[in-house]
Amino acid sequence: MKFSVIAIGDELLIGQVTDTNTGEIARRFGEIGWEVADALVIADDAEAITAAIDRAFRATDVVLMTGGLGPTKDDITKQTLLRYFGGEMVFDESVLANIENVFERRGLTLNELTRRQAEVPSSCKVIQNEVGTAPIMWFEKDGKVLVSMPGVPFEMRAALEKVVPQLEARFPNDLIIIRRTLLVTDITESALAQRLEEWEASLPTFAHLAYLPQPGLIRLRLDCHICENEANEANRLFDEMKALVGENMLFDDDKPLEAILLAELKRRGLTVATAESCTGGNIAHRITTIAGSSEAFVGGIVAYSNKVKISQLGVNTDTLNEYGAVSIAVVEEMASGACRHLGADCAMATSGIAGPGGGTDEKPVGTVCMTVAVNGHVESATYRFPGNRERVIDRATSTAIISLIKELRKQ
Amino acid sequence: MKFSVIAIGDELLIGQVTDTNTGEIARRFGEIGWEVADALVIADDAEAITAAIDRAFRATDVVLMTGGLGPTKDDITKQTLLRYFGGEMVFDESVLANIENVFERRGLTLNELTRRQAEVPSSCKVIQNEVGTAPIMWFEKDGKVLVSMPGVPFEMRAALEKVVPQLEARFPNDLIIIRRTLLVTDITESALAQRLEEWEASLPTFAHLAYLPQPGLIRLRLDCHICENEANEANRLFDEMKALVGENMLFDDDKPLEAILLAELKRRGLTVATAESCTGGNIAHRITTIAGSSEAFVGGIVAYSNKVKISQLGVNTDTLNEYGAVSIAVVEEMASGACRHLGADCAMATSGIAGPGGGTDEKPVGTVCMTVAVNGHVESATYRFPGNRERVIDRATSTAIISLIKELRKQ
Repeated sequence: MKFSVIAIGDELLIGQVTDTNTGEIARRFGEIGWEVADALVIADDAEAITAAIDRAFRATDVVLMTGGLGPTKDDITKQTLLRYFGGEMVFDESVLANIENVFERRGLTLNELTRRQAEVPSSCKVIQNEVGTAPIMWFEKDGKVLVSMPGVPFEMRAALEKVVPQLEARFPNDLIIIRRTLLVTDITESALAQRLEEWEASLPTFAHLAYLPQPGLIRLRLDCHICENEANEANRLFDEMKALVGENMLFDDDKPLEAILLAELKRRGLTVATAESCTGGNIAHRITTIAGSSEAFVGGIVAYSNKVKISQLGVNTDTLNEYGAVSIAVVEEMASGACRHLGADCAMATSGIAGPGGGTDEKPVGTVCMTVAVNGHVESATYRFPGNRERVIDRATSTAIISLIKELRKQ
Repeated sequence: MKFSVIAIGDELLIGQVTDTNTGEIARRFGEIGWEVADALVIADDAEAITAAIDRAFRATDVVLMTGGLGPTKDDITKQTLLRYFGGEMVFDESVLANIENVFERRGLTLNELTRRQAEVPSSCKVIQNEVGTAPIMWFEKDGKVLVSMPGVPFEMRAALEKVVPQLEARFPNDLIIIRRTLLVTDITESALAQRLEEWEASLPTFAHLAYLPQPGLIRLRLDCHICENEANEANRLFDEMKALVGENMLFDDDKPLEAILLAELKRRGLTVATAESCTGGNIAHRITTIAGSSEAFVGGIVAYSNKVKISQLGVNTDTLNEYGAVSIAVVEEMASGACRHLGADCAMATSGIAGPGGGTDEKPVGTVCMTVAVNGHVESATYRFPGNRERVIDRATSTAIISLIKELRKQ
């Protein structure tokens, strides 16, 4: 089953806000085997909204729409849907009661503008948005369905949990998608493609292979569009792919690197600490986005200044003077200092030049020294990462996590 | 001048990768007053690509396209553009030389698949992609222009720096957009809208107001589409808006919170450190994404375990036992410990329950205790943030930064 997505908001088109809702919708519907045909971002503009719905209904039977439902003047989606689907604007008591609840929970008082959010077109079925004030609206026309959801990401996510089962019941479906991903390291995209070329050419038409490079990693994804009882066939192809990727496989599922690391640590009953200079806390941040990370992650030191490297990690002043802050000698002392001072079995340490300033001929922007330590054994390397500050930080973070995963597996 | 954006990639439609290129394009072109009419995300599918170009050329004279240019089989954009614009596939020596350069810099060896990236349709003008292997391609047809750029974000960003000036020269333009943003705090979106209602209704037609709520903050944006010599009129409206927002204004430009904080610190010659429990390094990470942050940021402690709170921040065991880790007493000791141990004038400290587990009746998920310290003076508060783990971390991070900005301004 294919469907269309329309995201509404001037802020998305001028790049002030990044649309993460479309991806969220795609992932959630992917779980029931539904696919996004295409996704359109348009302005808060009645004509654009009307044209977008016309276009989407020509292509698919279901349209998921996000945004443009706020109480302020710039949000005109509800008025436009009223004109498109007909009926009149009516006051919905159940929506008002919900808005009052939301406001009470937030300790706020209701004003006239917010009360108006309880007005909905009589042509829609209301689905209550329990975490926000803009109601979810379900419209039908000539057997086609449009669902309008709020654009605030956490409200949209909550809305999906109600909308997906209702759409699934409305459009029962036979074909499913089995989607499996391998995380692949230490090989370029083109070298990997060459290795898989012959196998890829022999794939049945229901199977499709995609290469998704990201910093330090390629995600290799196999999609099979099949009936539920043919799942074995998909698994067989996936096993073949795994065998071909061989030693370059880091993990056989699409999981965040930090979740893989935490699982490896927990399996071994080990704890970890971080000692970060150029990554500035991003390694610790990425690890702690995972629920339950506190079981293995004890804490970290963001040692941005040399003074902090010395006082908090016990880095030797002589080492700093002799080799400079961006050196293998310093990151090794940072890593062992992190284990010792924070009482952890393992550590990751980084020091580098994220840019744009600070580069030299010998150590240009992008140079990052890195150590991973496991039970006193250290492994270090110097990298030269391409790209801007953000990219260097991101790449160094991923590389540190990948390195520690590999080191743990060697033990 | 309006233009269309088309992003190509199955990975975008299944939500495996979030499209950040469209926002990047919008922001860069916004600087020269160009606007995105709409943005479409489509699959790696020849028919979808062809239909999308047809549609975009009906609406606008310029189409910016990203993605689908990799060396692997799933990337079919180049072949599709060849069929659309005509000509034949030719081998371009300048592109090969560039690819060889890129591979040499990365210490990799070229293979046949990568060599094929030097093939381009004879109907396009090549713009060299100096940071990657997929060339930028400029096509023209009936006075309309399509530019195909690589989808890898840092390559796309580099491509833009070449493409924007060339498009600006090709389509000279009179009208400009003056876009000004206020950062507004401590008021709900609807209360702010009520305050501005009358003024907003009186705005001239060339001016448009937008409300962009984000965690702990509303970005209030005024867009004026005017001639260059009418800039004064836009400035006058902006000043009126500022006066109406009054004390709720945090900043009069669309700048990241962490950049505003760093500027306030540098102006006062103060340094800052972080002591993070529930935010897990995210405050330090956000600060260090800003180039030059090392001038004010000395470092931080991610004190995830109580042991680290005690050993690295000098938190008293009795305080932990008596009040619990999530308490004002503990975050105040964390903040003063961070100043003392890391040698900083200011600090931000957080401790809370990000969830999904760990909540109690008294301290439910979302409870965050926070202290900001400036030269020994501390301000503390307990918050209850809504939403999931990611949102609680994000909201607590922004609130800590906003609180310190406000505290600095009081001094």
